Amino acid sequence: MGSRPGRPVWAHSQGHNEGLWKMFVDFCSGRDVKEVPACDSALARADLATNEASCLALIKAGVLDSREASRLAAALLDLGEKIRSGHFHLDPNLEDIHINIESFLTKTAGDLAGKIHSGRSRNDQVACDIRLWQRAMILNHLTRLCDLGDILLKCSLRERKTLMPGFSHHQRAFVTTFGHLMASHCQALLRDIERGVEVLHRVDCCPLGAAAGFGTSWPIDRDYLMKLLGFRDVVTNSLDAVSSRLEVECETAAWLALWMTHASCLAQDLILFSMEEFRWIRLAPETTTGSSIMPQKRNPDFAEVIKGKASLVHGALASLLSLGKGQPSGYHRDSQYSKPLGQDIWREVSAIPTLFKAVLQTMTLDRIRMKQAVQGGFLEAAEWADTIAQESGLPFREVYGAISLAVDDCRELGCLTLEAVNKALRSQKLAFEVSDKTAGQLSSPDLLLARRCSSGSPNPEEVAASVERYRGELASLRGHLKTSQQRWLKSDQHRLAALRRFAEKG
Amino acid sequence: MGSRPGRPVWAHSQGHNEGLWKMFVDFCSGRDVKEVPACDSALARADLATNEASCLALIKAGVLDSREASRLAAALLDLGEKIRSGHFHLDPNLEDIHINIESFLTKTAGDLAGKIHSGRSRNDQVACDIRLWQRAMILNHLTRLCDLGDILLKCSLRERKTLMPGFSHHQRAFVTTFGHLMASHCQALLRDIERGVEVLHRVDCCPLGAAAGFGTSWPIDRDYLMKLLGFRDVVTNSLDAVSSRLEVECETAAWLALWMTHASCLAQDLILFSMEEFRWIRLAPETTTGSSIMPQKRNPDFAEVIKGKASLVHGALASLLSLGKGQPSGYHRDSQYSKPLGQDIWREVSAIPTLFKAVLQTMTLDRIRMKQAVQGGFLEAAEWADTIAQESGLPFREVYGAISLAVDDCRELGCLTLEAVNKALRSQKLAFEVSDKTAGQLSSPDLLLARRCSSGSPNPEEVAASVERYRGELASLRGHLKTSQQRWLKSDQHRLAALRRFAEKG
Amino acid sequence: MGSRPGRPVWAHSQGHNEGLWKMFVDFCSGRDVKEVPACDSALARADLATNEASCLALIKAGVLDSREASRLAAALLDLGEKIRSGHFHLDPNLEDIHINIESFLTKTAGDLAGKIHSGRSRNDQVACDIRLWQRAMILNHLTRLCDLGDILLKCSLRERKTLMPGFSHHQRAFVTTFGHLMASHCQALLRDIERGVEVLHRVDCCPLGAAAGFGTSWPIDRDYLMKLLGFRDVVTNSLDAVSSRLEVECETAAWLALWMTHASCLAQDLILFSMEEFRWIRLAPETTTGSSIMPQKRNPDFAEVIKGKASLVHGALASLLSLGKGQPSGYHRDSQYSKPLGQDIWREVSAIPTLFKAVLQTMTLDRIRMKQAVQGGFLEAAEWADTIAQESGLPFREVYGAISLAVDDCRELGCLTLEAVNKALRSQKLAFEVSDKTAGQLSSPDLLLARRCSSGSPNPEEVAASVERYRGELASLRGHLKTSQQRWLKSDQHRLAALRRFAEKG
Amino acid sequence: MGSRPGRPVWAHSQGHNEGLWKMFVDFCSGRDVKEVPACDSALARADLATNEASCLALIKAGVLDSREASRLAAALLDLGEKIRSGHFHLDPNLEDIHINIESFLTKTAGDLAGKIHSGRSRNDQVACDIRLWQRAMILNHLTRLCDLGDILLKCSLRERKTLMPGFSHHQRAFVTTFGHLMASHCQALLRDIERGVEVLHRVDCCPLGAAAGFGTSWPIDRDYLMKLLGFRDVVTNSLDAVSSRLEVECETAAWLALWMTHASCLAQDLILFSMEEFRWIRLAPETTTGSSIMPQKRNPDFAEVIKGKASLVHGALASLLSLGKGQPSGYHRDSQYSKPLGQDIWREVSAIPTLFKAVLQTMTLDRIRMKQAVQGGFLEAAEWADTIAQESGLPFREVYGAISLAVDDCRELGCLTLEAVNKALRSQKLAFEVSDKTAGQLSSPDLLLARRCSSGSPNPEEVAASVERYRGELASLRGHLKTSQQRWLKSDQHRLAALRRFAEKG
Repeated sequence: MGSRPGRPVWAHSQGHNEGLWKMFVDFCSGRDVKEVPACDSALARADLATNEASCLALIKAGVLDSREASRLAAALLDLGEKIRSGHFHLDPNLEDIHINIESFLTKTAGDLAGKIHSGRSRNDQVACDIRLWQRAMILNHLTRLCDLGDILLKCSLRERKTLMPGFSHHQRAFVTTFGHLMASHCQALLRDIERGVEVLHRVDCCPLGAAAGFGTSWPIDRDYLMKLLGFRDVVTNSLDAVSSRLEVECETAAWLALWMTHASCLAQDLILFSMEEFRWIRLAPETTTGSSIMPQKRNPDFAEVIKGKASLVHGALASLLSLGKGQPSGYHRDSQYSKPLGQDIWREVSAIPTLFKAVLQTMTLDRIRMKQAVQGGFLEAAEWADTIAQESGLPFREVYGAISLAVDDCRELGCLTLEAVNKALRSQKLAFEVSDKTAGQLSSPDLLLARRCSSGSPNPEEVAASVERYRGELASLRGHLKTSQQRWLKSDQHRLAALRRFAEKG
Repeated sequence: MGSRPGRPVWAHSQGHNEGLWKMFVDFCSGRDVKEVPACDSALARADLATNEASCLALIKAGVLDSREASRLAAALLDLGEKIRSGHFHLDPNLEDIHINIESFLTKTAGDLAGKIHSGRSRNDQVACDIRLWQRAMILNHLTRLCDLGDILLKCSLRERKTLMPGFSHHQRAFVTTFGHLMASHCQALLRDIERGVEVLHRVDCCPLGAAAGFGTSWPIDRDYLMKLLGFRDVVTNSLDAVSSRLEVECETAAWLALWMTHASCLAQDLILFSMEEFRWIRLAPETTTGSSIMPQKRNPDFAEVIKGKASLVHGALASLLSLGKGQPSGYHRDSQYSKPLGQDIWREVSAIPTLFKAVLQTMTLDRIRMKQAVQGGFLEAAEWADTIAQESGLPFREVYGAISLAVDDCRELGCLTLEAVNKALRSQKLAFEVSDKTAGQLSSPDLLLARRCSSGSPNPEEVAASVERYRGELASLRGHLKTSQQRWLKSDQHRLAALRRFAEKG
Repeated sequence: MGSRPGRPVWAHSQGHNEGLWKMFVDFCSGRDVKEVPACDSALARADLATNEASCLALIKAGVLDSREASRLAAALLDLGEKIRSGHFHLDPNLEDIHINIESFLTKTAGDLAGKIHSGRSRNDQVACDIRLWQRAMILNHLTRLCDLGDILLKCSLRERKTLMPGFSHHQRAFVTTFGHLMASHCQALLRDIERGVEVLHRVDCCPLGAAAGFGTSWPIDRDYLMKLLGFRDVVTNSLDAVSSRLEVECETAAWLALWMTHASCLAQDLILFSMEEFRWIRLAPETTTGSSIMPQKRNPDFAEVIKGKASLVHGALASLLSLGKGQPSGYHRDSQYSKPLGQDIWREVSAIPTLFKAVLQTMTLDRIRMKQAVQGGFLEAAEWADTIAQESGLPFREVYGAISLAVDDCRELGCLTLEAVNKALRSQKLAFEVSDKTAGQLSSPDLLLARRCSSGSPNPEEVAASVERYRGELASLRGHLKTSQQRWLKSDQHRLAALRRFAEKG
Repeated sequence: MGSRPGRPVWAHSQGHNEGLWKMFVDFCSGRDVKEVPACDSALARADLATNEASCLALIKAGVLDSREASRLAAALLDLGEKIRSGHFHLDPNLEDIHINIESFLTKTAGDLAGKIHSGRSRNDQVACDIRLWQRAMILNHLTRLCDLGDILLKCSLRERKTLMPGFSHHQRAFVTTFGHLMASHCQALLRDIERGVEVLHRVDCCPLGAAAGFGTSWPIDRDYLMKLLGFRDVVTNSLDAVSSRLEVECETAAWLALWMTHASCLAQDLILFSMEEFRWIRLAPETTTGSSIMPQKRNPDFAEVIKGKASLVHGALASLLSLGKGQPSGYHRDSQYSKPLGQDIWREVSAIPTLFKAVLQTMTLDRIRMKQAVQGGFLEAAEWADTIAQESGLPFREVYGAISLAVDDCRELGCLTLEAVNKALRSQKLAFEVSDKTAGQLSSPDLLLARRCSSGSPNPEEVAASVERYRGELASLRGHLKTSQQRWLKSDQHRLAALRRFAEKG
């Protein structure tokens, strides 16, 4: 039987982390028994902000007089309350979030609510909503990625001496460490975060005021709108401001697609290393699904699902790029499906950094089996050749020939001996003899590692140095994020305060 | 302003088809204000059928005695009632549809309900559910495609003399007819239907009894299971029976991806021809979105959305193929996301044939503007050259040279004259003179068309002949579908009758 | 060190199959040091055939008189000679193959060569060339796939008793055999072949005579053209005949994409099973790359490259589908890149069936290690539960509970004992005791297999029966291919004979 | 007839730009008659540089003595000469560029040439080559994109008053200008360039010294290698240094995929506007293909091909992402095909910015037809409504209702009159009357434009301001590029000088 339904036996054992288990079950079962909410419900907060900004800008421009300002501000405060407390529900008969909110405002403030639409169109409004929503999603994700980075670094430092074979062509090839492997995943992750920060930079620009893509004769101050929404800059050209909505989705998807490729590789490492044929890693039961009658079975469903979600994101990116291909300038409804695609991606991948974190924190390593795996496969042979070439000054292609003979000689034993090597050197007429001392330096995998002096190598000291460096980079990236986040929070507070002031004045 | 929210003005006019309009609004707004149901709710009927078949096969095998058979049959009849009347609801805490149904049966029939799982696993069960569900989706879609074919043929026959330019490189190139264009879309559609029938043939095979992919020691008669579910054949090898679940999704998606490419081309033709720069087609208001202050505006949103959905399906296919790439044999959860992808595709494209049908039935053609468009661009020049080459026996490359000169001579006039052509022939020292009679036969676009004698050409008689042929092909494909459908209906009735018999016996 | 350059040591050993080794090196190095020829050079033979058919049809129609027929026939015979002997070279200054051949004919037969273009256009000509080329590629590939099927069946029959664990979630889950696994790959392959035959059926239709997509006034007999080229049918509608050129590429790519997914799974099985952690399979040295100083290393490059090529084909399919999306009717040059994409796919995947064949024929199995892998993981526990449920009539969910306890009891031993099971049944108050006889029937993996009675299971007798069935299906598919091939050969001979007759008459 | 083969008639006319024409023909015919060179021939210069750096680092580390240094330096100088003069040719029997170059060095400097491989592997070597090659490709492309930006700005400024309709849903919707459209394309291009600069930043890091991914015991100074090759930084972790080779290809492809989406939109604008139904743009004959007998036909093949190449790049990106998905850490040959994919992309898209530049510089606008297109479709109606709402303070939803009535009243006339508007306001009981002065300000499209005061709008002054701003941004981006380029040039010169010094010392 594959994975059994219901709660596995161990789920009743002491020390079982129920919350953790539920998180993994939830992630893996996905949409099977869960509905996907209507897309526009995710945009409610963003559309509220956009409306708040429109209102304040129209007040400043004198389009709304103080009585109108007061009524509209009060209605928006009311709406904000409802949205934040979860009491605002989409009416599916009202086409989209914009009409839903406009209808609410009209009910609350009367026909003057229509004035809030002065100088804007649904085109720039939805473009603005999507940028507000995406920038929040991106920032939150970057924060989670930074947290994952911390764990990778902790793991890297702790396991910097944990021996294991490094692979090439799915075959054991070199002595390395688990810590070096984790550092490698962290270095890739740092680039993913860096890329995300760049995407955030571009997304964090204000399209509001572009109207339907051709500007407006209403006296709208676009710089003021930008500041009201905490954006970094304005998307100047009005046509591009509206069209680049799709680009925002595409660029975000492309970033996540690259990251998911990395995530799928980490997942595959975990899958392989926890197979019974390896047994290097033992995943915590809460992070796997089990079988009540095959007690050793801990299925790495989460890791398989992560690989599957990489495929999902890659395909969604293909869809998004295809949506935009060959479109004439202006808004056309071809790009309508970019909204669900953008949301589907986030819904499926947001939890992944947190899952990885939990897995890395709860899994155990079988360091003895890992170490055994570096022995018996002549993983040391290349190092012998390198060392002899270094000491003798002989071209190493020739040294390799000799070592190859020695390996042949020692095949039964499973590892090189000093005698066999020197015999092979002589038989090849190479004027060099390996000393006992040198042989000693090559006699254990730890010693081999210690000889790797190149920067970034699996030498434990190099790994420790890298961890230090990556920590600094993570801190600096976190700094960037904090700055953006504070700008946004301040703008939220500013809008709220201003609305309260106008509401009271009325 | 882009498209205005709410009901357009014309929506209040007499003769307005409200149902039609709602269908188009619904299609275009898509997931904006609509939830996507949990995937497994779509599988309820299929899982019911799978359980019915399991039960009957276990009765036949003697695994269930008559008392057990009676209780389980009664519980299944009860469940069927609930599902068909819409009173069965998924409990999201019960992982998936299988556990939901097992839990219902246990509540109704007690612990013996567990026996229904003898000799099967969730692996073959879900594989069976998906094939049952997909074969129904495919059949229904094929029926809708046949209906669209009928309309295309009607339109083709009616418009076989409606002149218009044929394009190459987005430039007017040849005289053709709207009927010929419709026939071309129908011929492509026929291949789409043919492919769908082949996919249906492969999907219509029974994986039940494969258990987790490695068979079972329970005395399960797989041929009997196949018959109980109305399948055409058994998926023999048990491992492949379970793994090919993903292939079913991929193959269906690949078929729909090819069809959606065609659908997007028909959509693009409609978009172009209804642009103000063309104005060959006037779409019915109910099938478009309008603007209250730009009365001529009838936005072809549905056609743009169809193009967007082609991108969606193409990307979903990429995801599905990627899910399966490089998987080792056996069930792994990477393919988990194939279920939502498969359902997303169907949800988004099912309505399209019906939409096209409605559009083609309600749009109007401006045959005068279409005819004007074939004039003034020397679309007749190639036919002059061909005719002269035919009558004279001269190599037509040389004739082309002469016609090219004549065209140059007539540039101001915008069409060739007999004098100019004969003058050009003389100047090129070509020993041939075009007669008045011949010139007469080239003097109007209708006459040009009548000269096209090659089979499948836009000659109205050829179009009529093609329509006849395609009608026959459509009828034959419909016949195939009917046969399958009847086999399934019969098996449904047979299961129900058998369960009733056993339920009563108890 | 990764894979070493140059010839590995073993390449000098006795019995080394140099040809085999070169085939694998060539496949793996791919385009690194090899040029990709100009696309149109692949179409030379097809364009020759198209020209031959055009010429004969024009003779029949009386467009060419006997003198012209003779000269043109002679020129075409001359051209055929040159092409078949490899002495016809593309002149890159002459745009494409059509102009190259027209230029050759003009040089040989004079200006009358231009007449061969009567009633046709480059549009239908290239559409015809591509169908001729693709149908040959498809047929050859199908033949190779049938050959691979033979080997899979041989292997399946021979290894039907070779025990190994079956996997789910990358974890050992059930006792199965290598023969059953091979049969599973063969069953999937049979569907791939079936799909290929269907694609071939649709590709094998003649578009010639459609001219630029709008027919012609030349008296061209399209049925005669069809017969001259050995096609099965005519692509009637002239516009579709020209546009469906892209569909031919897309449909072929979609078929190959599905097959390559299967191929990548077989590749992944071979990669995993030959990892040092498994060591179930030992690939022949000629089919791998090695390392002179890590003698155990046999890198399965070919299998990794096959997985990579699956990605290539999947992406190329995405490109092809995207090329066609949203195109208005008629020929537009967007689809220009479909030609290189179609050729790239074939160039990269054609050799794969032959490579697999060679690998399967030369690899060796370590049956002892495979058998060991089925022991110690309680893979028998589910069978105990099933058997007890069958004999006792108890609901098996309850039996599972008891077996689960027994497994817990035997954890140290690594397999179930009769005592532990009966103790557990008693402790759960289940009124059943397993007999010695029954326990004996569960005491070895072979016996477990023998109990699997469901059709298509890994029971060796079932595997043998499947092999028989698949052999029959392969034979029938081969029959289809033969019929098509003979039709084409006959048409080739007929054209040649006819041309000779006309050439001599002159 | 579609496009005719051979030289069109106008190609013989005076003033014909033969070079331009050949560039376009070459771009459009693509791979039809052109071979694709072996991939590794593109890497020759990069591999030379890598070898030079390795040699100099080994000299510095004392691995090579002065005699060896001299001989190797001389051999490398010799090789460089050959490569730069085009006299170095790949031997296809020598697997790849690395073995080809090693073989050359061995022939020239004898066996000691083998020493150059000390402390490195083909893994880090090819990773380094690819980064060197990609950074040059990226830089050159960015330069070309900047040049295209210049032209777009020039065009934007010149045409800032050239009226045309702006579209939404493929329907005329607003008055705008061609200059604003060009500015919109430029703003998107600026983001493309910005993204490219970021990609360049990440690519411009040195992996050399990572050996096979696990470092080395040779005393290699990785910072020195970095400086020798002009890189910005080191890719520290050795495993990631080797694995990120695929990421370099993916990230570059993702960047180009986004840009090609934009390029395809500009192409589509040009295609549409040059259709006979529009005739707003007349493409220069050299940039199109023509027909000798349909003189008005100027087929925009280049633009269609650009759209096709967008599909190509999108699919290639899908392939690249799929190659990397689910790979375990370490080098595996799955990613082998990333090299040709990366090269195919560049080969197909490099020329595009230059083509666009030529098209924009040589096309002519029919400003009269463009202006006519803004009339008669009530494109002014929304502006009337906005203006009345502004002047009256009435909610504009109500004003819209009135304007909608007025439009209905003026349907025959095709544009709004003051009388009709005031009548409609009265009939809706809206207490406002439009004055003659206001009506005057709305009486022409130019005046409408002048009223659009929002920043980034099509108001000619806004467009002029944007052009100024974009010019500054372009200059700043160019500055970045220059700095990188100079660093690389300096490192090239430094290596050459150092090698010369060592060669002479010998």
